[in-house]
Amino acid sequence: MRIEIPRYTERFGSVRINDVQKVLELDSGRTTEQSLHKNIGVQKIEEDNIKAIEEKMAIVIPIRDEKLKLFEGVISGIPHECLIIVVSNSQRKQVDRFKMEKEALKQLCHFTRRQALVIHQKDPILARALAEAGYTDLLGENGLMRDGKAEGMVGAILIAMMAKKEFIGFIDADNYFPGAVWEYAKCYAVGFSMASSPYAMVRILWHYKPKVSAGMYFKKWGRVSEVTNKYMNSLISTKLGFETEIIKTGNAGEHAMSLRLAEILPYASGYAVEPQELVSILEGFGEVSPKGPQMAAKHGIDVFQIETINPHLHEEKGLEHLKGMLLPGLGAIYHSPLCEAETKHIIRDELLKQGAITHGEEPPKPHIINLPKKIDRQKFAAVMKEHLDSYSALEEK
Amino acid sequence: MRIEIPRYTERFGSVRINDVQKVLELDSGRTTEQSLHKNIGVQKIEEDNIKAIEEKMAIVIPIRDEKLKLFEGVISGIPHECLIIVVSNSQRKQVDRFKMEKEALKQLCHFTRRQALVIHQKDPILARALAEAGYTDLLGENGLMRDGKAEGMVGAILIAMMAKKEFIGFIDADNYFPGAVWEYAKCYAVGFSMASSPYAMVRILWHYKPKVSAGMYFKKWGRVSEVTNKYMNSLISTKLGFETEIIKTGNAGEHAMSLRLAEILPYASGYAVEPQELVSILEGFGEVSPKGPQMAAKHGIDVFQIETINPHLHEEKGLEHLKGMLLPGLGAIYHSPLCEAETKHIIRDELLKQGAITHGEEPPKPHIINLPKKIDRQKFAAVMKEHLDSYSALEEK
Repeated sequence: MRIEIPRYTERFGSVRINDVQKVLELDSGRTTEQSLHKNIGVQKIEEDNIKAIEEKMAIVIPIRDEKLKLFEGVISGIPHECLIIVVSNSQRKQVDRFKMEKEALKQLCHFTRRQALVIHQKDPILARALAEAGYTDLLGENGLMRDGKAEGMVGAILIAMMAKKEFIGFIDADNYFPGAVWEYAKCYAVGFSMASSPYAMVRILWHYKPKVSAGMYFKKWGRVSEVTNKYMNSLISTKLGFETEIIKTGNAGEHAMSLRLAEILPYASGYAVEPQELVSILEGFGEVSPKGPQMAAKHGIDVFQIETINPHLHEEKGLEHLKGMLLPGLGAIYHSPLCEAETKHIIRDELLKQGAITHGEEPPKPHIINLPKKIDRQKFAAVMKEHLDSYSALEEK
Repeated sequence: MRIEIPRYTERFGSVRINDVQKVLELDSGRTTEQSLHKNIGVQKIEEDNIKAIEEKMAIVIPIRDEKLKLFEGVISGIPHECLIIVVSNSQRKQVDRFKMEKEALKQLCHFTRRQALVIHQKDPILARALAEAGYTDLLGENGLMRDGKAEGMVGAILIAMMAKKEFIGFIDADNYFPGAVWEYAKCYAVGFSMASSPYAMVRILWHYKPKVSAGMYFKKWGRVSEVTNKYMNSLISTKLGFETEIIKTGNAGEHAMSLRLAEILPYASGYAVEPQELVSILEGFGEVSPKGPQMAAKHGIDVFQIETINPHLHEEKGLEHLKGMLLPGLGAIYHSPLCEAETKHIIRDELLKQGAITHGEEPPKPHIINLPKKIDRQKFAAVMKEHLDSYSALEEK
């Protein structure tokens, strides 16, 4: 893969946020020796380095009643070396969708000789493992894991920790193009290969996001993304005293982290989860005297924003869904201790204009989930490992 | 890449047409040793074998006033090892579109350090080279190459022969997904790696072809393809005396050939070109005593039909265009010496129903272009090589 070298990096405390880097070539061919003068501006990441990272990477597919055809396509786009972790919150009552997902996955894994783990968010063993490991933040009143994409994501992080992976990436199950899925996984690996710190994050910016409602129109920005980025940048700008537009992936659902970073971040429930990750990084490490873990502060946090060559084409969930995403994301920014009065003011104005809050109202404060590091790993693994076979999609004979 | 092994092969004379093989996994990871019992039904083609073929392959992009954004995307999806040959028939008068295409290509090649050739169909030097080499089938009354995709394709075959490539693949310039383009090139290489004869052809079947007119609907078959396949199969069936449905890619614009095969086929002008290739193969080698070159008949002709994982999303050209494609394709089948009265009868019925011909009319007989092998290679190269620098997109410094 060939990619731009970041032309600009914003530095806050020990956080390094890199400006958008575009992918120039999906497949850059065999390993070659490059003369140095060719390296200004663009770099080639060798396939071998990418594969070495993929071997240490788990790719998480959160799924909830998505079309099976799309799910199958997504699976077949993920590079073979990555461990697939499917976290499903699909219905099991009238129709057992989860069973169908499991069967489709098993069939694909059988024919492609690859390993995958598949688990339901309401799995009682997972719930028991969490309870015994003292990590009850994910559990609801019925003792099972709560609904919500964020809860599933944190569950997947815990499973990836147990599987001794070093990196974790998230890819939605409703993507129409396996080739785009493949590129996301490559971009994650490319990002980590560029990181100078073991605490790193890669966020995907789509080249275009086609709107299919009336013909075909290639939009650069989703509506929610545009708004989230604006206020995230406002939060940073007012804190720093000069304006920046560095954040272009505030809402990136497609993103990845080194597990060392993933372990030490607090997460927000629901659709605040992706913006909150950036907010958590800024809160923990964005100031001159960082509040986050010392080791991470010393290495620093690398954030990469990578623009794909492929457009992003996914199931359209409609306006309702968009509003449902906007409010929690802005809530995460609004309630950060870093957020100053000026930014709070313009966020309230925006939400009033969008009809998402009424006068005098504030956006909801995100429910924060404790850092995954707080779990008792031994106790969690003790319960889970005993049942690991039942989560495995590939039956070795 | 992991792909199905063909479960069925139809054999006519020395032609072997393989049933559709689905791609199962875009990226099958590092080279591994496979135990034999795992190889039934599915095979993994190692990346190294794919790259070895890509190095010997030219990928041709025919372009005519297509959107530059799409063209750029297509280029960036082509594996680095392939030689890109752009054959443009874009306008040069009011706006010099060809110049813009050339600039876009040069910029991409500069940053990705790759080689590409770009030539206009009306290039006077190309016309002179063809005339001096005694290959005047492509030339019009004004002494320049005629319009038409087929003419451009044959021109590209001649250039690939001169560049000493072994394989040639065609990819349209109006594809929305670079990731799909990448998969086409991989499928070509995978097909050739499976061939037992040096005379081989790979034709792409799209997993789905989304219709974007009203929302998003994933169709398995394009209208023209369905009809062309039906009558191509009828031609074969009546000749063989038992029914077959083996042809599923009669109209495949995305297809590739070994140059040894490409050199010995007569081609049809215009939109008959892709169906005519199959007709030419069947005419030359499909009977017990083959009429085509002896060496090719001895090795046999391998035809692979590969179904991609990615759907195919391209610029919608409307119904007019579809009719414009149907008539010449069916004309190629209709006028083949292999076509019996029964098939001719149902083709006329079909075209009457579609309103493409009137009562008593026949579909047009395709204009046939002489085999590329008939060119005087030395004379062609002598003229072209002198000007090769002006066709090159990468300026080496």
